[in-house]
Parts: sequence; C-alpha cells; structure tokens
Amino acid sequence: MYSLAELADRFGLEFTGDANTGLTGLATLADAGPADLAFLANSKYLSQLDSTRAGAVILSQALVERCPVACLIADDPYVAFARISALYDKSPRPAAGAHPSASVSPQADVHPSASIGPNVVVEPGAVLAEGVILAAGVYVGHNSHLGAGTRVMPNAVIHHDVRLGERCVIHAQAVLGADGFGFAQGPEGWERVCQLGGVRLGDRVEIGAGTTVDRGTLGHTVIADGVIIDNQVQVGHNCRIGKNTAIAGCTGLAGSTIIGAGCTLAGGVGVVGHVEICDNVHVTGMTMVTKSITRAGSYSSGTPMTSTRDWKRNAVRFSQLDSIQRRLAAQESRGKNIDKG
Amino acid sequence: MYSLAELADRFGLEFTGDANTGLTGLATLADAGPADLAFLANSKYLSQLDSTRAGAVILSQALVERCPVACLIADDPYVAFARISALYDKSPRPAAGAHPSASVSPQADVHPSASIGPNVVVEPGAVLAEGVILAAGVYVGHNSHLGAGTRVMPNAVIHHDVRLGERCVIHAQAVLGADGFGFAQGPEGWERVCQLGGVRLGDRVEIGAGTTVDRGTLGHTVIADGVIIDNQVQVGHNCRIGKNTAIAGCTGLAGSTIIGAGCTLAGGVGVVGHVEICDNVHVTGMTMVTKSITRAGSYSSGTPMTSTRDWKRNAVRFSQLDSIQRRLAAQESRGKNIDKG
Amino acid sequence: MYSLAELADRFGLEFTGDANTGLTGLATLADAGPADLAFLANSKYLSQLDSTRAGAVILSQALVERCPVACLIADDPYVAFARISALYDKSPRPAAGAHPSASVSPQADVHPSASIGPNVVVEPGAVLAEGVILAAGVYVGHNSHLGAGTRVMPNAVIHHDVRLGERCVIHAQAVLGADGFGFAQGPEGWERVCQLGGVRLGDRVEIGAGTTVDRGTLGHTVIADGVIIDNQVQVGHNCRIGKNTAIAGCTGLAGSTIIGAGCTLAGGVGVVGHVEICDNVHVTGMTMVTKSITRAGSYSSGTPMTSTRDWKRNAVRFSQLDSIQRRLAAQESRGKNIDKG
Repeated sequence: MYSLAELADRFGLEFTGDANTGLTGLATLADAGPADLAFLANSKYLSQLDSTRAGAVILSQALVERCPVACLIADDPYVAFARISALYDKSPRPAAGAHPSASVSPQADVHPSASIGPNVVVEPGAVLAEGVILAAGVYVGHNSHLGAGTRVMPNAVIHHDVRLGERCVIHAQAVLGADGFGFAQGPEGWERVCQLGGVRLGDRVEIGAGTTVDRGTLGHTVIADGVIIDNQVQVGHNCRIGKNTAIAGCTGLAGSTIIGAGCTLAGGVGVVGHVEICDNVHVTGMTMVTKSITRAGSYSSGTPMTSTRDWKRNAVRFSQLDSIQRRLAAQESRGKNIDKG
Repeated sequence: MYSLAELADRFGLEFTGDANTGLTGLATLADAGPADLAFLANSKYLSQLDSTRAGAVILSQALVERCPVACLIADDPYVAFARISALYDKSPRPAAGAHPSASVSPQADVHPSASIGPNVVVEPGAVLAEGVILAAGVYVGHNSHLGAGTRVMPNAVIHHDVRLGERCVIHAQAVLGADGFGFAQGPEGWERVCQLGGVRLGDRVEIGAGTTVDRGTLGHTVIADGVIIDNQVQVGHNCRIGKNTAIAGCTGLAGSTIIGAGCTLAGGVGVVGHVEICDNVHVTGMTMVTKSITRAGSYSSGTPMTSTRDWKRNAVRFSQLDSIQRRLAAQESRGKNIDKG
Repeated sequence: MYSLAELADRFGLEFTGDANTGLTGLATLADAGPADLAFLANSKYLSQLDSTRAGAVILSQALVERCPVACLIADDPYVAFARISALYDKSPRPAAGAHPSASVSPQADVHPSASIGPNVVVEPGAVLAEGVILAAGVYVGHNSHLGAGTRVMPNAVIHHDVRLGERCVIHAQAVLGADGFGFAQGPEGWERVCQLGGVRLGDRVEIGAGTTVDRGTLGHTVIADGVIIDNQVQVGHNCRIGKNTAIAGCTGLAGSTIIGAGCTLAGGVGVVGHVEICDNVHVTGMTMVTKSITRAGSYSSGTPMTSTRDWKRNAVRFSQLDSIQRRLAAQESRGKNIDKG
C-alpha cells in the first residue's frame, strides 16, 4: 500500500485531497473502490469520472475541478499510470543463480546475479550480463549475448549469434534467429541458402509471445533501441526496424524490409519484401504494404465490413470495376457529343 | 472392435443390418472397408453413399433406404460421429504421477491423480485438480489453477494467476497470460504498463496450438465456458469472449474486445480494439472488424480472388472509386438537365 | 578459407582471375571486401557490380566482361550461391548421442548416430534414423518416425503418429500433429471430434518456426517431398500439399484443403476449407482463396494501399458499388433512349 503523498513524491506529481489516502491497488474508473487508484487518460471515459468511487484518480490539471475524489495531477496521465503500475506489479521475480536442472555450459559467461530457471540450456560462448533472467525452458545458443537486465520468458528460443541489448523482454515461445526463408530454385527442387548472419536487438526491445525474428542471410536482422513488437509477429531475414517503432500482433514482414523510426504498424499488417518505409509512418490494421513509403503519414488498404449479403452484392462489382470505369467513360464521351450536338 | 449393436446401445441409436457387424475403425465413405464405420453428415458426399464399401454408416433416418449397407441412425449424424470417435481414439494417455525430471514446487497443490510429464515446471501456489494432465515441458506459473480433467499439451506455457476450469484442452506451444501489449508514449520512448490482471477460462475451453491469450491490464482476460479457439489465434489483453463462441485459426483480437456468446469467427479475421460484437454473429474469413456489431447475423469484408491480371486492372480503379462516383453523379445531373432542357 | 580455384572445382564452375584468391566469407556486392565472395542474381543490383570491392563474384557468363574483379561463372548464380553457402555455414552441429537430461524411452528405436539434446523427450515406439538431430527441448511422441538426416530445432513438438522423411528441417516451436479443429455442434455446445489420423511428411520438407500442421481426422495430413513452409503458417487437418510447393509466412490453410505441386503461396494468404488448388499456381500476398483454382497461373485479391485519407474516401464507395453499377446502367439506358430519340 502506498499513500497518496508517497506516490506524488516518488513520481514528482502534485495532488489534491487527503495526503494519507491509502492506495492498495490500481483499477479502472468504473471498477475502483476507495482503496484503489484509477486514471483518466482517454476522454471517452470522462463520464465515468463523475461517479467514480476510486480513492484517487490520476488525471490532468484541467480535470481536477471535475473530479469528485482525490487527484494525482500529471502532464501525461497515461505515462504516470504506466510508471506507477510498476509499483503495484506483483509478478514473481526469481532469485539469482541456476536451477539444478539447467544445462549451462562452462564455456558460457554468466554474471553471478543472473537467474537461470529449470531446464534452461545455455550453450558455449553465450554471455548473460548482470541481472539477466531466463525463465524455465529457455534456450540460448552459441555465442549469443544478453545485455544487463534482459528477461526471457518460458520456452523462448534464442539461436546462436543473436545479440540483445539491455533491459529487453522476450516473451514466451518467441524465436530469435531461426533460419530465414531463403531457397534457390534448383533443377531438382528448392535448395537451401544457408543463413549466415545473426540477429541484433538494441536496448529495451520487447518481443511478444510467439513472435519470430529470423536471422540474416549474410548480414544481420536488426531491431533498434526501444522497438516494441506484439505477439505472433513474423520478422523476415535481413529486416531492419528503426528506433521506437511499434508493431502490433499478427503482422508479417517479409525479408529485407526496412522500417524507419517512430512508425506504428497496427495488427495484421503485411509488408512485402525489399521495400522501405520511412520514419513516422502509421499503417492501419490489416493493410497490405506492397511498395515503399517515402512520406510520413497514415496508410491503409482493405474494404469496410458490412453484412455478408451486402458485401456479396458489392464484392462481385469489384471484379467489374475496370469495365464500370470504361462504361462511365463511354457515357461521358457520349454526353460531350450530345453537347456538341 | 465394437459390434454394430454395441455402438447402437452405447449411444442410444437405432440400427439396421447385422447386429454382429464388427467395426474396427472409422473411415470416410470413400475409403471405408467392410470393418469400418463411416458417416454421412454433409449432402455433398451423398453420391459416395451409393458405392460405399463400409461395414456400416451413421446417417439420418431419411437416408436409410438409400444406404447399401448397415446403418446407425442418428438425429444428428455428425454429433453421433463425434461421440463415437472418442471410442476409437488411441492417442496415448499418460499415467498418474510426476516424471522424475519434473520440477514441482512443494507449495503447489497437486491431486494424486494428476499426471505430470518430463521437464514440467509447477510453481508455488499452483493447483492441479483431479485428473489434470501436463505433457512434457509444460510450465505452470505461480498461483495458477487447473480444473479437473484439464489437459495441457507439450511445451505450452501458463503464466502466473491464470485459472482454467474443468476439462479444458490447451494445445502445444499455446501461451496463457503473457503480458498484454500496453505501453505509454513517454518523452524518451515507450514505457511499459505493467499487466496486473490475469486470465480466466471457463470449463471445456479449447485453446489451439501456438495460440496466445494475454493477461489483463487491471482486470482479467476472460474466456467463457465451451469456447473453442483454433491454432495461432491472438487474444489481446482484457478481451472477453462469450460462451460457446468458436474462433478459427490465424484470427487476431486486439485489446479490450468483447465478443458475445454463440459467435463464429472464421479464419484470419482481425478485430480492432475496444469494440463489442453481440451474440450470434458470424464473421467470414479474413474480415476486418473495425467497429462494434450490434445485430446478430453474418458480416464480411475483402474482395474476391481473380487472376492477378484482372485483379490489377480492377484494383487500380479502387483508388479512383470516389472520383468514379463523382463522375457518375455529374452524368446523372447532366442527364436531368437534358431531360428538363 | 577457400581459394577461387577450389570453389570452381568443387562446384563445377568456370572462373576468371587469380586462382589463388582466398575467400573467407560471403557478402553482398555492396558490403564485400577483398576476401569475400559476392554474387549477382538479380539485375536490380547490377549497378553495384561496377563498384564492388569483392574478391570474386558469382555471376552469369554474360556479365563477366563487366565485372571488375574475379568471377565464378554459373548458369544459375543464385543456385551456385546457395550451394556454396553451405561451405561457409558455421552454425553449430551437435555430436552424436543423448544428453544426460534427455528422456528417451527404451522402447524407442534410436540410431547410434542420432544426436539428442538436453531435455528432449522421445516416447515409446518412436524411430530416429541415421543422423537425426533433436535440439534441446524437442518432444517426439509415440510411434513417430524421423527419417535419416532430419533435424528438429529447439522446443518443437512432434506428436504421436507423425512420420517425417529424410533430411527434413523442423524449426523451433513448430508443432506437427496437434489435434485438428473438429467439433460438432451438440445440444449443449461443441463436441470434440477425435482426430484419429496422423501427419505424413515426405523428404526434404522444411517447416518454419512456430508453424503448426494438424493431424488428420480419419486419414493423414500429407506434405509431399521438397515442400518448403515458412514461419507461423497454419496447415489444417486433412490438408494435402504437393511436391516442391512453397508457402510463405503467416499463411493459413483451413481443413481439407488440397494444394498441387509446384505452387507458391506468398505471405499472409488464407485458403478456405475443402477447396483444391491445381499444380503451378501462384497466389500473391494476403489473397483470400475462397474457391478452387483449376488453371495454373497467378491469382490475387485485396485493394491497393493509399494514404488513409484517400482510402477512407474510396472505401466508403466500395459499399455503394452495387448501387453505382445500377446508376450507371440507368444512365446507359437513358442514353440509348436519347439516341432513339
């Protein structure tokens, strides 16, 4: 439990109300009780403020007057909420040292503060820096390096020659450094192109559960500092993703795609290979990116959802669009001839 | 092997033909031999009935006369087939007890009938009820509960504070309770919002191989009784999925999505965050659901597949649709003027 | 390190330049230094040839004159590059024998040359042929067979009754033989159809990281010789995929889909159930295949990406397409009446 005054002090925020208000947890405006801290970061939920039973609410200066309970005042309430959430996080943190069932190579370089869970495998030449946490069943391949404070969740696989910066989080079942999908069409069928490069992640990179990042063919696949990637994303070989870019779930990047800094790709986006997306591009959900994007801005493809009955009627016309345009052009030309008359 | 009469008796069905017909296995109408039981549940395969060599066929009363071999008569032949299939299932079932390589916390509460495979990890506070089966390499986090008869397939990961009802099946590589994709945009980059909620599954929930269900931010991510989810589906944090809803492979639900009961989402569907789908909605494959659905029925988006040559001709016109509509309106207006003229 | 003459000799190629040129690695035309071998297989990179600093370049006869450095001359430079890449592959290969932490059933048939990594589980009746490699954490179920030279990467799961031919590669976290998504709608909810079939893979099949191939319902799910499948692909129960077909990442095949030989499915494609695609079909990225394809060729669906502002304007018209076509037809009919006068 933290008092309102303690929280204000720790996070450099102003407050209104009783400094001793005890706050045992975080909750939504609608669900919060008198011992909960709530937040208001989206004007959509403004009406919930009036009736909240929270002990206190994180909000912006402009809303203090409207708030019926104590306030923690923040320039950016969502960022303040994010920081405070860490204080209330009770997720288990394991102790330093290796579980007896782990197989750690004596040729690995493991900092004494690292925590190595059951059934973890660490191969020769691997480096685990200060405070690294490997949960149960994680595999770390030959010569892979994990920077200080990096955490890897259960059963994730980090192949050989993969380097992660500091404070990265790799979620369960993620795979870093599987072979890229490179094959040449030989006389008898597909012939494998060995994938000789590795994977390089900067600091504070987040890789979601079940996400796969393939190793490079000759150079490396590179993900810059601060990139956050959601679950079940596929990053093909030789991709490069710029600083602080965010990629939502189920997105797929084909090989050799370059994505700039500060981009946001919504869920289910597909990007073809060998294209380049510049900085500060937003791509809306399920868009098919088939060419390079050279100007910052928001991009989309797809068709709107309707009832299946209406959709069928309209979709069949999609396949006639070119002929519709020609028929329209014929009408226009006829119109002009009538005018000329 | 079961005789025709035995099967009829066990499943409360009528039959025609020789009661002693021995049936050693199940097969399709086309492939079945004299010792196989086949079924006819889809009129598409009706023509195969005439020439089947099966020992017996599960079908509806209306088709008995047409059937050249013995019959098992069912109101719903596919349901009867489903139930009978369990009798012929030879998939291995492990014995009770823990494999010596498992790491089971003494602070876990494990029913003696539970089966715990090689390299399984069960953390403190976890509860495994009667008949739970954990296959090799499964991870069960702190304070997670698995109800009676629930089975978890190899290498699946169940994080802390995840509760499953009875008779659930969690397939290989699935992840329940990874952190949701919650980040605030701070002055230096993305700041993590700790995900303090858990995951709650009802009874008889099926989670496919490689499917990921994120934990809630403040409350829980909730999946109701009888929900079936296929492989490689992504369920974002704070989602709620209603009773008996079915979700096919490769579908992605963004965060805080609410889906009603009795819905069916076909494969590859994407649902944006913070929308609500009411009960009894069907969404066709690869549809992009970008807004709430408030009436039961079937919904779709997308365009029909054609040859790439035709597609290119038509797709380019999609980007001119608004101008096509304006040109058409101009023609209509000109037409009216001529009429008046 | 290999000399130019050695490489030419090993791979049956002609060369120009100094036979003793030492080549220590492979690199792109742009990145290569004097000890690197580069290649030119795509005319897009032709301009890089003029300024390359590579020690030698693999290219076709026609480009020898233009090349400023030594040449390795190949009919198909990309195939030659693929073969030579194996020579420079330094990815770790484990020794024969089983790691002490592996759980290998005495009822499994394991060739002495097989390599079994830490925490691997091999169930009774499994067969591992000569030179099979199972990396850490792999599970091989009852009665599954792995042909000579087949390799399985960390934490992949091979369920019971799955058979793989020779020289297959199964990447990390892949799942072969999970239950197909088969349920009958019973009076109380979904009833499981037990999946009694298995999975059959031919020789030289490649299965990407996180890819799932479900077992068949009655017969088997079948993948023919030489098929290559990328990461995060879902193959439903009872599918059959023909020889040398290639499937790129994030593609989903619903159940009972049949795909011919020599096909290429680009990334993010979805194929509905119970359809058949003939030989030598190419499907472009993110296409929704909703019906059978009976003629070889290239197929597509979807709409082109534009700025979100333009997209919104055009997408709203998609839902009016049928009415636009009717309005156009009315104009045409009016036009004819005017002509008739």
